[in-house]
Amino acid sequence: MAPAPRLLPVLTLLLLTAAVGPCAGAGRGGGRVDLWPMPSSVTRGAQTLHVSRDLKLTTAGSNYSDGRGILRDAFARMVAVVNMDHVINGSYQGAPVLAGVNVVVRSPDDKLNFGMDESYKLSVPATGSPLYAQIEAQTVYGALHALENILHWHIVDEQSFPLEIPSYPKLWNGAYSYSERYTMDEAIDIVQYAEKRGVNVLAEIDVPGHALSWGVGYPSLWPSATCKEPLDVSSDFTFKVINGILSDFSKVFKFKFVHLGGDEINTSCWTTTPRIKSWLIQHGMNESDAYRYFVLRAQKIALSHGYDIINWLGSGVAEKVVAAGLRCIVSNQDKWYLDHLDATWEGFYMNEPLTNIYNPEQQKLVLGGEVCAWGEHIDASDIQQTIWPRAAAAAGIMFVLTNLFFEFEERLWTPIAKVAKDTRSVTARLARFRCLLNQRGVAAAPVAAYGRSAPSEPDSCLRQ
Amino acid sequence: MAPAPRLLPVLTLLLLTAAVGPCAGAGRGGGRVDLWPMPSSVTRGAQTLHVSRDLKLTTAGSNYSDGRGILRDAFARMVAVVNMDHVINGSYQGAPVLAGVNVVVRSPDDKLNFGMDESYKLSVPATGSPLYAQIEAQTVYGALHALENILHWHIVDEQSFPLEIPSYPKLWNGAYSYSERYTMDEAIDIVQYAEKRGVNVLAEIDVPGHALSWGVGYPSLWPSATCKEPLDVSSDFTFKVINGILSDFSKVFKFKFVHLGGDEINTSCWTTTPRIKSWLIQHGMNESDAYRYFVLRAQKIALSHGYDIINWLGSGVAEKVVAAGLRCIVSNQDKWYLDHLDATWEGFYMNEPLTNIYNPEQQKLVLGGEVCAWGEHIDASDIQQTIWPRAAAAAGIMFVLTNLFFEFEERLWTPIAKVAKDTRSVTARLARFRCLLNQRGVAAAPVAAYGRSAPSEPDSCLRQ
Repeated sequence: MAPAPRLLPVLTLLLLTAAVGPCAGAGRGGGRVDLWPMPSSVTRGAQTLHVSRDLKLTTAGSNYSDGRGILRDAFARMVAVVNMDHVINGSYQGAPVLAGVNVVVRSPDDKLNFGMDESYKLSVPATGSPLYAQIEAQTVYGALHALENILHWHIVDEQSFPLEIPSYPKLWNGAYSYSERYTMDEAIDIVQYAEKRGVNVLAEIDVPGHALSWGVGYPSLWPSATCKEPLDVSSDFTFKVINGILSDFSKVFKFKFVHLGGDEINTSCWTTTPRIKSWLIQHGMNESDAYRYFVLRAQKIALSHGYDIINWLGSGVAEKVVAAGLRCIVSNQDKWYLDHLDATWEGFYMNEPLTNIYNPEQQKLVLGGEVCAWGEHIDASDIQQTIWPRAAAAAGIMFVLTNLFFEFEERLWTPIAKVAKDTRSVTARLARFRCLLNQRGVAAAPVAAYGRSAPSEPDSCLRQ
Repeated sequence: MAPAPRLLPVLTLLLLTAAVGPCAGAGRGGGRVDLWPMPSSVTRGAQTLHVSRDLKLTTAGSNYSDGRGILRDAFARMVAVVNMDHVINGSYQGAPVLAGVNVVVRSPDDKLNFGMDESYKLSVPATGSPLYAQIEAQTVYGALHALENILHWHIVDEQSFPLEIPSYPKLWNGAYSYSERYTMDEAIDIVQYAEKRGVNVLAEIDVPGHALSWGVGYPSLWPSATCKEPLDVSSDFTFKVINGILSDFSKVFKFKFVHLGGDEINTSCWTTTPRIKSWLIQHGMNESDAYRYFVLRAQKIALSHGYDIINWLGSGVAEKVVAAGLRCIVSNQDKWYLDHLDATWEGFYMNEPLTNIYNPEQQKLVLGGEVCAWGEHIDASDIQQTIWPRAAAAAGIMFVLTNLFFEFEERLWTPIAKVAKDTRSVTARLARFRCLLNQRGVAAAPVAAYGRSAPSEPDSCLRQ
């Protein structure tokens, strides 16, 4: 009775257009450039530069005033990371020293929008007095990418309901414990923290399945006390609660999209609960009809709050979705699920989101990809080494904590033409990136083995 | 021909003498006090206090001026940790609020010495206007313990030689890589960082075995180019290098003790290398004699630089050591090795350092215990969950990184009389401590399983 639900669009596949000039980090004489991910275009010189301990930030020629300190703070973070590396004391007479970085941002606007230009160009000249690197970008967020790589962080509640919803204040009674909850003020802090780093926060409420925890505070959301999932499709109260949640979300999560889940539904409680079964008969619906009715009604509520919508779909449908002229993000379970510990980084790296999509116009509708780590066996003790470095191999990431559904996402960064067909040539570069993550306090696991593996023997980080 | 080497003394078994008055953190009405480790003495009231967001530090009645900011910085760290917990916005009319902490330190001295009084007494009164908690301690380091638990951190080079030794500047050629090295300035930073937190740094050079990496920079330290361990006992250059290292150490590592290793020696290279074999014959030594000669000569060098000495000894010798009137630290491989992933926290908790030592005078010679994690399969990606929370169960820790030999040590904290004989009663308290570690950014693994295990199912941190 209803048309198919709108399909999951989201997040740009933005190709990095960085041209690195004579490159300070490129090493001495060798042909290798150890950057991860590989920019769209790189050229390098033969000169090694030393970085001043007192690196300066200037913005000559910029139209952007940095009133919120987005650029200033990002520069300070970059300098802190550079200083974390080993700096040998001493003076280098005659060796050129990089005195600072001049950033030219063409747009004065600092609002983080979907589809904005986040490309940048970084040039490091071989000479100059004082010698300054030059970053040119259309927006401040493009300039940030020149200072560090960046993740999109998406936040959503799942089986546990840890987030405060002022419209329905008993919802977070479904949290694991009193201390394992997030206030709306904390959600605002997270969004602001992320935005200053060029990171959008995408919120998800997964309906109608995976929502058992909602009924801890409001048991009438369950079909019955003994059959608790999915949410009661027959009750207006269900949709009032969804409306309350999305209304509260819209005050906090300003990203263009909201995620409405929709995955893994077993609707048998709807037909085994007499009240709901009567409602289905009365409305002439079977279980599939009722599922579509639920999804569409929830989507209409989200649209009424100004959101575009993302849903989970089944596997292998990307080519059908783009053939129908709709946008999609690829996240195939067989290659890009980080909680599959036997999935190697080579598998993540070689996975091709455009598989079976040959029409260039349809290829443009594949907006990007996500890698997922579902959180059944992940918590604060093992999340970092489960995710890294394999997520870097796909340059996209999304994951779930046991008490809160986090979703991280980054653009697919390296143009397909630049992806090495033989992963052996990439291993050393990824290993080096993994060591950098370790140095910066991220517990990325060794590259050589399966996910979340310990080092196999004592050796340099660069060879693990 | 030589007497047995001096035996490993070190580090106080200091019993915490904290009396906690009506206790803010003790929960509502229940009889449980969720502290880890359990203090020597605790009493609690029925009143719940709220902690002010603007907690004050005062030092009325103190003889200590805090010129180096040791107390001020520790207080700021404690406040930051408290604020990391979930604070529900709102006002609590009528509920008592803790306005600050008054710290009374009796000694004006802030030098961190072996054997100093590090006990403290913490009282939280139920009433007061404004209401202040009171900490009383003999030294500032005792007062620190009232604000947080503290580790002793010990640093030493092992198979890899990552530390700069100015007297023999090629020694760190034996590091894994150029970037996996530590300058002397960095070692000084580490010592100063640690001291401000009441943490002593104990340095180890493991001789004559486990020293292959020394010869990368100075190949004449090897018996031969094909037989590289242990260090050449017949060469004066070997002891000149040890003297250079310990001379440089003594400028940086001011702790009373140095660790000279001495473990796992296979001396066959000494008899298969003709030059050394001739030397042994000339001096009338067999391999065991030569080993004792080496250890004693290295110990004399350490003594000449003002150090007391620690060596590794074999298993099961603690009772013999104390029977001989010497001090020891217990670290039994079967119970207290964190790299044994099948060693459970219950085993760590129930291990008794005083096994087979019944004489009270001899018991006093057991200065404490260490738990070890040898680093063959540990690096930045998995070190935290390998160590925690099992190390907390023993309240002592020492471990090894693949590229640097770190040693952490904390006093055995809870008096034997207070250790629960049935670990089931302790589980919830340890799980709560593990969640605290997670909240503070330490990737402590779930309590319920073996070492470094993932959570078995999605659930509250408190039940993992």
